[in-house]
Amino acid sequence: MPLRLNISDPGFESDFRALLGAKREASQDVEARVREIVSDTRARGDAALIDYTLKFDALELTPQTLRVEAGAIEAAYESAPAATREALHFAHERIRSHHERQRPSDERYVDAAGAELGHRWTAIGSVGLYVPGGAASYPSSVLMNAVPAKVAGVERIAMAVPARNGELNPLVLAAARIAGVDEIWRVGGAQAIAAFAYGTQSIAPVAKIVGPGNAYVASAKRQVFGTVGIDMIAGPSEVLVIADGENDPDWIAADLLAQAEHDAAAQSILVTDDAAFASAVEAAVERQLARLPREETARASWRDFGAVILVRDLTADAPALADRIAAEHLEIATADPEALFARIRDAGAVFLGRHTPEVIGDYVGGSNHVLPTARSARFSSGLSVLDFVKRTSVLKLSAEALRALGPSAVELATAEGLDAHARSVSIRMNAGPGA
Amino acid sequence: MPLRLNISDPGFESDFRALLGAKREASQDVEARVREIVSDTRARGDAALIDYTLKFDALELTPQTLRVEAGAIEAAYESAPAATREALHFAHERIRSHHERQRPSDERYVDAAGAELGHRWTAIGSVGLYVPGGAASYPSSVLMNAVPAKVAGVERIAMAVPARNGELNPLVLAAARIAGVDEIWRVGGAQAIAAFAYGTQSIAPVAKIVGPGNAYVASAKRQVFGTVGIDMIAGPSEVLVIADGENDPDWIAADLLAQAEHDAAAQSILVTDDAAFASAVEAAVERQLARLPREETARASWRDFGAVILVRDLTADAPALADRIAAEHLEIATADPEALFARIRDAGAVFLGRHTPEVIGDYVGGSNHVLPTARSARFSSGLSVLDFVKRTSVLKLSAEALRALGPSAVELATAEGLDAHARSVSIRMNAGPGA
Repeated sequence: MPLRLNISDPGFESDFRALLGAKREASQDVEARVREIVSDTRARGDAALIDYTLKFDALELTPQTLRVEAGAIEAAYESAPAATREALHFAHERIRSHHERQRPSDERYVDAAGAELGHRWTAIGSVGLYVPGGAASYPSSVLMNAVPAKVAGVERIAMAVPARNGELNPLVLAAARIAGVDEIWRVGGAQAIAAFAYGTQSIAPVAKIVGPGNAYVASAKRQVFGTVGIDMIAGPSEVLVIADGENDPDWIAADLLAQAEHDAAAQSILVTDDAAFASAVEAAVERQLARLPREETARASWRDFGAVILVRDLTADAPALADRIAAEHLEIATADPEALFARIRDAGAVFLGRHTPEVIGDYVGGSNHVLPTARSARFSSGLSVLDFVKRTSVLKLSAEALRALGPSAVELATAEGLDAHARSVSIRMNAGPGA
Repeated sequence: MPLRLNISDPGFESDFRALLGAKREASQDVEARVREIVSDTRARGDAALIDYTLKFDALELTPQTLRVEAGAIEAAYESAPAATREALHFAHERIRSHHERQRPSDERYVDAAGAELGHRWTAIGSVGLYVPGGAASYPSSVLMNAVPAKVAGVERIAMAVPARNGELNPLVLAAARIAGVDEIWRVGGAQAIAAFAYGTQSIAPVAKIVGPGNAYVASAKRQVFGTVGIDMIAGPSEVLVIADGENDPDWIAADLLAQAEHDAAAQSILVTDDAAFASAVEAAVERQLARLPREETARASWRDFGAVILVRDLTADAPALADRIAAEHLEIATADPEALFARIRDAGAVFLGRHTPEVIGDYVGGSNHVLPTARSARFSSGLSVLDFVKRTSVLKLSAEALRALGPSAVELATAEGLDAHARSVSIRMNAGPGA
């Protein structure tokens, strides 16, 4: 049974704090081991990749077979069931067209002092996309990571995916082909991250690395951060559903379980103002669990991290709880979901109304499913085109504008004890109007 | 003497690589020590802050004197020389008005399938601003970090600044008052970062921490990343000046030294196509160095990390070098700087033309002086309002739109083996048009 909290209980605040503080991931201390793998791969390049792949993925590679050949990608695409392929194309097109709207624009203007200011956006030159192997090797995630990079105009998108025993998920290859990934490498783990960051004989280094991964991958990303850019470090998935008693308990139960089936460390929380509805949802969860192929995972998640929170009044009580939870996914299934959403500040993505299950956003909504977890929606955003561009600020002064701004710059530089700074401005102020 | 390279020399490529790879910061391994300080401060709160402040800053504090009183801030503001205060107000107003233009806008639209998509931006709730003590305690940096947060609408801006022997730079306090900082705490180092991340009895935790600091501060920021957001980890400052022979060598020399005087690890690089001009700049640097109060620092930087690179043709050769250097600051002092800038991809900020010394951007240009260092302009941008807001993506489906998108979502969920995902959609598709 999940945790059941009632905002009217005297112990609520401390129980709610315990829920927020629950550690959902066993912190694996792999840092030292990862440091070795990263430095060895940096030093030995391809040879290290080949050694680690034999050891961790039971796959014997040569420099010639590190890269997945174009023919194999094409074959995987062709072998995919037609309906799945069509659904991938449908999802790709929706994600692409939504992300097209995220392209930022350049700006230039001349202000009252005659100074020209502005900024220019450019795409990051090259990006490495990590895709986990095994059960978490999702074609939808390939689309969600590659499409924003492509829309941003990244010239080279390289993908790394471990091929345990030589096996790759053909739908992952198909999704990469659809998204326009330029290279696919049969390597995984910390060694793949090191290869992307520092390059090897075969793999050119990239400027930024994105994509989810296990503890080794996450630790390697933290270690190479600075040499390359990285995206967020993703934690277990989570959903907060705010629902009134007018919902079908079966629908809400299905939404809670969709999150729970991802991972035993996933978290599903229901906030409602209707005690009978809460009980009905709990009963529906039990019924649905029994029929679920991933029952064991979903049951563990619901039992260990699930919660049902009963409040007095949704409008008065739910927003503050939602901000404290700062959920990756927030579903609002009420009569007026917009009004409630307007009172909530922190959430990675919101799904409004009774007909918007979060799962639509996982695949075909068009928005990105790479979203901030573990309360990081308080300070960060989901993946977007902005993650694949960077801004150069622009300043351009005439001799006259320099004379207008110069005195204050000289004053501040002098106050900070930076005489060469002051001189770099004053030497130009004292010159004639020419040049 | 700085390094002198000529693109026509056979050894150029390897020398240029060595220049790029030069390690400008002795990597201090403070991680373990910082881990102790962070966990102790998290556990003991104010008491730990007070202990470390006595130990590291030779200052005896009580819970009552941790915070700088409003009266002290006001007194510092009043005591500042009128000209400096005016220059701070002038800079503040220019920075504010430029950053006002960076506020992103919300969006909502309904697409062809009838799905409503969009995003909403909200300010981060609270931000901690770290300001170093001693020589690197710059009022201009207070403005550059606090103003974008304020413009973004951050409700609470807390500042931490170490007060060695009880001393604080009055101009730092004055800048904080002008920028609208809400709280100032007399604490520094890793303990200040821990206090911001986890909170103490006196200091409420924040959602994001920004601002430069020494190796302890940088390591602490890395360690608390995830619990809170952080900005970039700043390295030593750097400038790349691309200049033709038509410039006054004294002007360009002053610009190179303005960077060099910051820090012995700062880097100033000149790229020019005119050998005589290169020599003239070098001579001017020597002349100006002799008159500089921070001569020792500037001389060490210029000697150890400075470089003069002679190329055959600026248009043909400079852009590729500039992208490989990916400088924090790029000055282009040529007859047609825009044409050259159009061919360069990677730079934190660009300063166009002979009358735009980089120093104007440090103080009063209006754009931000917190910029990506150490080649990170390849994948990241300077500080802006975007660093103090986050985006919630929005999805809202009618029953009809759900039926349009649903089948593809069900197909993909099933292909990924996620049955509860499929069910969360199909259960709604099979329902009547009502609700």
